[in-house]
Amino acid sequence: MSSPMSSANGLVCFTNCLLPQEDGTLLQKDLWIDQVRGVILDAQRSFYLRKERPEKVIDLGGNVLSPGLIDIQINGAYGFDFSVFDGDEETYKGGLVSVAEKIVETGVTSLVPTIITQERSLYPTLLRLLRPYSSPTSANLLGWHAEGPFIDMAKRGAHAPSFLLSAKEGFRSFEDLYGTANLADSEDWLMEDSMGVRIITAAPEIEGVMQAVSELDKRGVVFSIGHSIATSDIATSAVRNGARLITHLFNAMPQLHHRDPSIIGLLGASPHLASPFSPITGQPYSPMQAPVPKRTHSFKLSVPVTGSEAFDDVVTPPQTPLFARYRDKKSPPKTGENYDFMRPFYELIVDGIHSHPNSVRLAYSAYPEGCILITDAMKILDPHLHDGVHEWRDGKRFVKEGDKLYLEGTDTLAGSVVTLDKCVRNFTRFTGCDMGQAIKCATMNPAKCLGIEDRKGTLRPGADADLVVLDKQGYVQSTWVKGRELWTRRA
Amino acid sequence: MSSPMSSANGLVCFTNCLLPQEDGTLLQKDLWIDQVRGVILDAQRSFYLRKERPEKVIDLGGNVLSPGLIDIQINGAYGFDFSVFDGDEETYKGGLVSVAEKIVETGVTSLVPTIITQERSLYPTLLRLLRPYSSPTSANLLGWHAEGPFIDMAKRGAHAPSFLLSAKEGFRSFEDLYGTANLADSEDWLMEDSMGVRIITAAPEIEGVMQAVSELDKRGVVFSIGHSIATSDIATSAVRNGARLITHLFNAMPQLHHRDPSIIGLLGASPHLASPFSPITGQPYSPMQAPVPKRTHSFKLSVPVTGSEAFDDVVTPPQTPLFARYRDKKSPPKTGENYDFMRPFYELIVDGIHSHPNSVRLAYSAYPEGCILITDAMKILDPHLHDGVHEWRDGKRFVKEGDKLYLEGTDTLAGSVVTLDKCVRNFTRFTGCDMGQAIKCATMNPAKCLGIEDRKGTLRPGADADLVVLDKQGYVQSTWVKGRELWTRRA
Repeated sequence: MSSPMSSANGLVCFTNCLLPQEDGTLLQKDLWIDQVRGVILDAQRSFYLRKERPEKVIDLGGNVLSPGLIDIQINGAYGFDFSVFDGDEETYKGGLVSVAEKIVETGVTSLVPTIITQERSLYPTLLRLLRPYSSPTSANLLGWHAEGPFIDMAKRGAHAPSFLLSAKEGFRSFEDLYGTANLADSEDWLMEDSMGVRIITAAPEIEGVMQAVSELDKRGVVFSIGHSIATSDIATSAVRNGARLITHLFNAMPQLHHRDPSIIGLLGASPHLASPFSPITGQPYSPMQAPVPKRTHSFKLSVPVTGSEAFDDVVTPPQTPLFARYRDKKSPPKTGENYDFMRPFYELIVDGIHSHPNSVRLAYSAYPEGCILITDAMKILDPHLHDGVHEWRDGKRFVKEGDKLYLEGTDTLAGSVVTLDKCVRNFTRFTGCDMGQAIKCATMNPAKCLGIEDRKGTLRPGADADLVVLDKQGYVQSTWVKGRELWTRRA
Repeated sequence: MSSPMSSANGLVCFTNCLLPQEDGTLLQKDLWIDQVRGVILDAQRSFYLRKERPEKVIDLGGNVLSPGLIDIQINGAYGFDFSVFDGDEETYKGGLVSVAEKIVETGVTSLVPTIITQERSLYPTLLRLLRPYSSPTSANLLGWHAEGPFIDMAKRGAHAPSFLLSAKEGFRSFEDLYGTANLADSEDWLMEDSMGVRIITAAPEIEGVMQAVSELDKRGVVFSIGHSIATSDIATSAVRNGARLITHLFNAMPQLHHRDPSIIGLLGASPHLASPFSPITGQPYSPMQAPVPKRTHSFKLSVPVTGSEAFDDVVTPPQTPLFARYRDKKSPPKTGENYDFMRPFYELIVDGIHSHPNSVRLAYSAYPEGCILITDAMKILDPHLHDGVHEWRDGKRFVKEGDKLYLEGTDTLAGSVVTLDKCVRNFTRFTGCDMGQAIKCATMNPAKCLGIEDRKGTLRPGADADLVVLDKQGYVQSTWVKGRELWTRRA
C-alpha cells in the first residue's frame, strides 16, 4: 500500500500564495489542481472528504497565483498579423499557434484573435481558420472577434475605407458576410470543433446594424459598440437590444458631450431612466430601429419628476431582449441589483498612450464591474523587440517608441504594443486600485462578458487550471495552461 | 416645582423621522434641538445625563429630517439679480433679504450669492453688501461667490466679454479688483461682521491666475476652476496649488478628451501619479507657474512603471501647499485615505437640461464624495412662476419652459431656474442613488467644501438647527432656521 503522499495522482497544491478573489481582494490560501484533468479542485473536498494528498506541493514564496489573463482584443503579435492571409492555410495556422505559444510569457492563457475590416471574400476562409483551438502547449484560442466591416466611416481609424459596409438586410447581411455557419449558435463554446464567433464590433447607427443586434445576442454573440458616432439614444437602443460591450472605450467614438454623452455616457446609464423613453427626444425607443434625433443641445426629461416617481425604487426592466443569455442563466434583475443592466462592459487599452491616466480612472471608478483590459496589440507586439522602425503591410512602416506605436512620418497612433501583464501593472498605478482589482479586469470581467466565467478567468473549482504566477510588482513568474507549466521566468 | 415635561426650556424633540447620516444612509432616530440657542443637541447627553425633557415633541410621521440645503452658486431668485446694482444700497439689501426669506420654501437654509463678471468699479460696493447675513426669519447668506472676471474668453458663457480681465500681478490683481479688505482672512466665518469671500471662480490658464491660487487657498478662499480651457496639466497644477472646486462641471469647459481630459478629468486624478511630473510633458509641474504644453495627442509616463514602483502604495504628497486649510485641520493624508487629495469638489446642475442624466451618473459614480448640487439659478427662479417670456437685463429677454431657460430667439441656455430640492429629487433618479446620498450632495458636501461642516449641512451636536423636513418623495414639508420653523407646506 503506497502512502497517499507518494501516489501519482496528478494533484498539485500551490501554497504560500495570494489568490485573487471575485470581489477584487487577495486572500492567502492554498490552491489545488488536478494536472491530469487540467482543472482546479475544491481543496476542502479533495483533502478532507476524499482524503487525497497532493503529489506535489509548490511553495510560491508569497507571490500571487492568478487565473491566467484573457485578452479579448488582439490583432497579432510576434510578427504575425491575424488579419493577413497570404493564401496558405498551413502558414496561417502556424502563425496563429506560434502566437498562442509565445504569448504565455505575458501571462495570457486565453485570447480572442481580432481581425480588422477585410475584403469581404476573405471572411469565410479566415473565420474558419479562427475556430477555437486548445493545445497542451499554448494559450487557448477562444474564437474570433471581428472588428468591422459594419463600422462608421467617420470613426474608421486604421480600417480600409473601401471595405466598409452597411447591413441593409439586418442580420442577413451579417450572415452573408461572416458566413451562416460561422454565426451558428453552439452549446459548448470551449469545444474545439464549435463555431468560433465571440465578438462582433459594429456601429449601431450604420444602416441595418441595429436590427441585427438582438439576433446576434440571442445566438450568444457579444455585440460590441465601436468605431461609431452613435448618439446617446442610439447607443442606449443598442444596449436595450442586447449590445454588451464597448470596443476600446474612448478611441474611435465621440468625446463625452455632457448633453449627449454618446457611447462613453453608457457608463453612467441610469437605472431609473430604464423607461422606454429617450431623455433627449421624449419619444419611445424603438426596439428594432434606432431613433436618429438631431444632435440637440438640450433635452426634455422623458418622464416628469413628480410625486412618487421621484424616489420610486421599482424599475421596470425593458420588454425587449436584454442580455438575453444572462437572463437565462441568472435570476431576473431585482431592485438594488439592477443598476448595471443598462451598462455594457467596456474595453480599455491601458498603455499610457491611448488614454490619459485620469480618463482611465474616471471610467473605472464610474463602473468598475464593467472594466476589461485589452492590449489591442499589433503584430509587432513582442516584449523582446527593440524600439525603431518596423514593416507593417501594404508597404507601410511603423515606429515603435516604448509602448507608443505610430505611422512613420506622422503622429497617428497605429494600435498598441503593450503586453497585458503590463496593462495590469499600469492600471493599478493609474487608478490606485489594488492588484486584485486590476487582475479581475483581465480575468473575471472578460470571462463574464463572454459568458465563460465558470471555465476561464476564475479559480472556481472545476474551472480550467489556466494560471499565472505574478510577483508583488505584477511581473509574470510562470504561466500554466490546463495545469501544465508552459513558461517560467529564468532566474 | 414644575414637571420636566412642562418646563419652557426651548427643547424640541423630533420623533418618528429618518435622519440622513454622513455615510449617505437614512436612520430612524430622534433629533433634539434647542430653540433658544438655535442649535442641535446631543440627545443622549440632554436626556440621560442632564435629565432634561423636551418642551415639545414633534411627530414627523416617518418623513425625512435633513440638514437644510446649501446652495453655493445662485445668481438670483424671485425677480432679484445679485449681479444688478442700481445705485441704491437699501434696495439691494432689501432684494437680498427678500430672496433669503422666500428661498426657504425650496428647503434652502444657506446660500452663497454669486455674482457674474461686473464692470470692475462695482466690485467694492457689491462685495461689501454681500457680507454674511443671518436673521431669525430667513435663510443664511454665507458670503459671496465671485464668478469672474478672471475667466477665459473662449468659455465666457453669458459673461460680458469687455469686462474680462487677466491677473498680471497675481494675487495683487485679485486684491485690486475685489478689494483688499474683502479678501482678508477671518477666523469665524459665520460671524455676521466677518468678510464675506467664500468662492472665486477663475480660469487658471489666464495670465497671473495660477500664481494667486495658493495665496487664496491660504486665506481660506475656495478657488474654483471654471469658465476655463485648462489642459490636464494646468488643471492639475491648479489643484496642486490649492484649487478645491470645479464650477458647474461640464459647462463652460472643454469636453473630456481621453488623451487630455482637462478639468473633467480631475475626477479621475490618480493618487499614484501625484508625483510632481506631468504625464503629458514628463516635466515637473511648476508650483507657481502653469506648464503650458502644446495640446498633444500622446504623452510619456512621468515615472516608468518598473519594479517596486508599480504597486508601491506609498504616495508622496506634493511639497506645494495643497488644501492648506484641510491639512491644518486634519491629519496628513495616509496610504489608503489619500486617494482624493488630487481631486477637487465639483458642482453639478441637475436640472435635466444642463447635463444628460448619463453624464450626471458618470461623474457621481466616479467620485461621489466630491459632488455638490447647485442651482446656478437666475433671478427668475421662482417655483410659482409660469412658463413664458421674461425680462432679464440690458433689454434682453428669456424664455422659460419648465426648467429650461434660454435667450429669446435662440437656443442658448441662459442659466437655470431649477430649485435645489428638485435637483435632489432629479439626482436620485438620474444616478439611482438613495435619497440620503442625494441629500449629502446638497448639505454635507458643500459644507465640507466651505470648511463649515461643523456648523452647517450636518446634524452633528452643536451645529445650527437649520433643518428641512422632506417627504419620502423629496418634497419640502417644512423648513427651519436656527430652530425656528420659517415655512410650512399648506395642507
